[in-house]
Amino acid sequence: MKETEIIRLKDDVQLNNPIMFVGLPGVGHVGKLVVEHLIENLEGEKVIEIYSPYFPPQVLVNNDNTIKLVNNEIYACNINGQDILILAGDHQSSTNEGHYELGSLYLDLAEEFGVSRIYTLGGFPTGEFNHNEGVIGAVNNINLVEELEGYGVEFRENEPGNGIVGASGLILGLCDFRNIDAACLMGLTSGYIVDPKSAQSILRVIDRILDIEIDEEELEKRAKEMEKVVEKIKTMKEQQETGNLPQKDEDINYII
Amino acid sequence: MKETEIIRLKDDVQLNNPIMFVGLPGVGHVGKLVVEHLIENLEGEKVIEIYSPYFPPQVLVNNDNTIKLVNNEIYACNINGQDILILAGDHQSSTNEGHYELGSLYLDLAEEFGVSRIYTLGGFPTGEFNHNEGVIGAVNNINLVEELEGYGVEFRENEPGNGIVGASGLILGLCDFRNIDAACLMGLTSGYIVDPKSAQSILRVIDRILDIEIDEEELEKRAKEMEKVVEKIKTMKEQQETGNLPQKDEDINYII
Amino acid sequence: MKETEIIRLKDDVQLNNPIMFVGLPGVGHVGKLVVEHLIENLEGEKVIEIYSPYFPPQVLVNNDNTIKLVNNEIYACNINGQDILILAGDHQSSTNEGHYELGSLYLDLAEEFGVSRIYTLGGFPTGEFNHNEGVIGAVNNINLVEELEGYGVEFRENEPGNGIVGASGLILGLCDFRNIDAACLMGLTSGYIVDPKSAQSILRVIDRILDIEIDEEELEKRAKEMEKVVEKIKTMKEQQETGNLPQKDEDINYII
Amino acid sequence: MKETEIIRLKDDVQLNNPIMFVGLPGVGHVGKLVVEHLIENLEGEKVIEIYSPYFPPQVLVNNDNTIKLVNNEIYACNINGQDILILAGDHQSSTNEGHYELGSLYLDLAEEFGVSRIYTLGGFPTGEFNHNEGVIGAVNNINLVEELEGYGVEFRENEPGNGIVGASGLILGLCDFRNIDAACLMGLTSGYIVDPKSAQSILRVIDRILDIEIDEEELEKRAKEMEKVVEKIKTMKEQQETGNLPQKDEDINYII
Repeated sequence: MKETEIIRLKDDVQLNNPIMFVGLPGVGHVGKLVVEHLIENLEGEKVIEIYSPYFPPQVLVNNDNTIKLVNNEIYACNINGQDILILAGDHQSSTNEGHYELGSLYLDLAEEFGVSRIYTLGGFPTGEFNHNEGVIGAVNNINLVEELEGYGVEFRENEPGNGIVGASGLILGLCDFRNIDAACLMGLTSGYIVDPKSAQSILRVIDRILDIEIDEEELEKRAKEMEKVVEKIKTMKEQQETGNLPQKDEDINYII
Repeated sequence: MKETEIIRLKDDVQLNNPIMFVGLPGVGHVGKLVVEHLIENLEGEKVIEIYSPYFPPQVLVNNDNTIKLVNNEIYACNINGQDILILAGDHQSSTNEGHYELGSLYLDLAEEFGVSRIYTLGGFPTGEFNHNEGVIGAVNNINLVEELEGYGVEFRENEPGNGIVGASGLILGLCDFRNIDAACLMGLTSGYIVDPKSAQSILRVIDRILDIEIDEEELEKRAKEMEKVVEKIKTMKEQQETGNLPQKDEDINYII
Repeated sequence: MKETEIIRLKDDVQLNNPIMFVGLPGVGHVGKLVVEHLIENLEGEKVIEIYSPYFPPQVLVNNDNTIKLVNNEIYACNINGQDILILAGDHQSSTNEGHYELGSLYLDLAEEFGVSRIYTLGGFPTGEFNHNEGVIGAVNNINLVEELEGYGVEFRENEPGNGIVGASGLILGLCDFRNIDAACLMGLTSGYIVDPKSAQSILRVIDRILDIEIDEEELEKRAKEMEKVVEKIKTMKEQQETGNLPQKDEDINYII
Repeated sequence: MKETEIIRLKDDVQLNNPIMFVGLPGVGHVGKLVVEHLIENLEGEKVIEIYSPYFPPQVLVNNDNTIKLVNNEIYACNINGQDILILAGDHQSSTNEGHYELGSLYLDLAEEFGVSRIYTLGGFPTGEFNHNEGVIGAVNNINLVEELEGYGVEFRENEPGNGIVGASGLILGLCDFRNIDAACLMGLTSGYIVDPKSAQSILRVIDRILDIEIDEEELEKRAKEMEKVVEKIKTMKEQQETGNLPQKDEDINYII
């Protein structure tokens, strides 16, 4: 495989003015959690698989011991008459040039499907565990700010200070070349753990964008499990400071 | 050398429905030990050499002081009427894209020879020195599970947890694009040392696959040497914990 | 985006024997500070934007929360009848080959505009905070030495000892292939902080090159802010040596 | 510069059955010292310059403050009727694929000039400062062993144990594809310092290969300077072990 390969699972995909959501692995896996929840709840149908020499040489192993080569995938769904495309998956890119090549490829596909609006979803690392409901925004077109503030997105001056690194930022930048409006929605998160609560915050913004109310049960369950893990981490930290070593804990797998 | 180069040592290689075994350097060098043992005992004939700018810029030096440019090689043999191809060698890949390019190339060759089944061989790192006979499996086609369980391969739910990284996993994933059935057989091993015992475990599975009994003498000898090394390591660890420093030991070269 | 992309913002750019200044991020951000000051004070008009898969996958976020894909830019201005081109921007290169490809591209553009002289601007790291007015020079044509000494550039034997690494050195080397005279002007700087004072030193050499006097107010203001930061750093160092820990300080952002 | 560039300084280079010596920077800079000494003493004429995006983005600065883009160079000379080509320079390669591409390019040029024998020169790291006269050999053709032993080259069984990494090994391996006989001559050296004494050892082997006696004065001078540095290092080590810290020493620049 010398080049990225696109596998089309459905030949005749007709969409009307779709919105695209992008949630690749990143800070707190927030974006990934959101899109996986959307695909589940909106009954997304997989239409495209993307394999690439820019992904790690790795297969994931399913519960039934079959393997899956790491990839990214595009799902299509429709809610309230609004066509939606969702880009989800396993990896951003293993190389610098790969980021640009894959990002451009995603936008080739977006253009092909007539996408007019892209939301990239991610986490905004705060370094603190105390949960904050906020969802911070950045846009590639200033006319989007007012609309997004209406959806509950917060715009802070000078934030993020160092810009946005990775696919959720790059895709916004590349959208400029395609005249596609795009915004990055970042849920506030510690940056140390997988964060379903932060995903819930973004989901509520998406509810307002789509004017629906997506069931949150799955994320709520994971959020409760994560609260226990955060409590354990806080306890471990106190124990370390006082000199008592904690027990080995499987829950620590929730830490990214 | 801008591209990977394939040197064919034999022009007219006709094989009937061959099985392919892949054992490149990896965890515990388990896969490598197995295929080297197979090539020796089944009198494999080298048919292909593969050189690549994705291998390190390195030559190995033979006992007679002649050099050999690092490469991978394919051997052909036949046992009990079953044609076999064996991919063995010095290196997986020095770059990310190289993994994908080389993996695809190996499968181009597999398809050319009409390979219908590929077994990639490797080690499953446990972190523990106490030897376990088990061989864990992962497949790219669920129909293979029952057959492999019949050969003594163990399938554990959720294992390996982080998937399989490297050629032995990637080749399975790429086989999906070629409609070649493939399985990864992983001998349990500490992950710290070259492990001939783990190679023996895989060899016994291969005995059942091929319905033969391959002489284990060479591996048995190496396994006994390794047991002495493991004892020394355990003693060294105890000495470190009690404060007595061990002697410098040449056997420590067996550690990967 | 598989290749570097050049966006021309103005079609018909006619320049007469222009001089080019190059100030990409580097030691002390000295070169960057100089060219940004020149663009501001000489009212540079942006004529070219350069995007590249060799830049990091990153967008910067403006005060109004709109994003900008990392890039480099070329500005044109004219002072005292002398046409000037200025190459400024966000990044040198994320890969080795990228350095060479981008450098060659900049010189393709320089040749296209008929550039006859290029000055690359940077910092010469001394490891010391005490400010030194000096600007050290290196040239690709020995005939430039005397002229530059006339502008106040210092030429030290055997300095810089390890040569010049990065765009400001590479561009000089590549100029040899194009028969463009080029010099690297390096302001003495600690190497630990963004250094507006060092930028002022280079600016005064440029004043003599162009026979003008560029207003220094902006740089002067930043230099005064930096002096306070340097004082704080010196105090912090003393505190560390005596055992008193310093307060958390926002000014430390000035450290590169 | 997207590709490696070859600048030919002389159009009509006719050589008769030349021998090629390769001495690129490596362990102890031994090979580099030898070829620079040969070029000087045999009055080598530069015939080719090689620039490459695989070399670092760097210029070296000469005493007169002019710069030189990092490159490798080929010199031609003749001694006792024997045509000689010498490959010398600044760098091996910054990337894995670069090693293979450059190595192949050097051999394209070797073939073009009708080279029948290549000697790559380097250092064999021992970890010890006490000087050993020995020059270890490795060959790509077993028939070379006896001849080289006649020149005083030592062949040790199982040495070098991990093969030869880098240009001096790779070139030998690539020579196999060109039917060019090649040998690597490695002077024993600590591996910690630039080692002119080790270069002298190789030079004496070259004297026997070419049946001449090359003046050693330059290398002898450098060897004496290095002996003083080695003494200082030994003293520093003792001081560290006894607790007295040494003075800052400029000679420590001799350490690689």
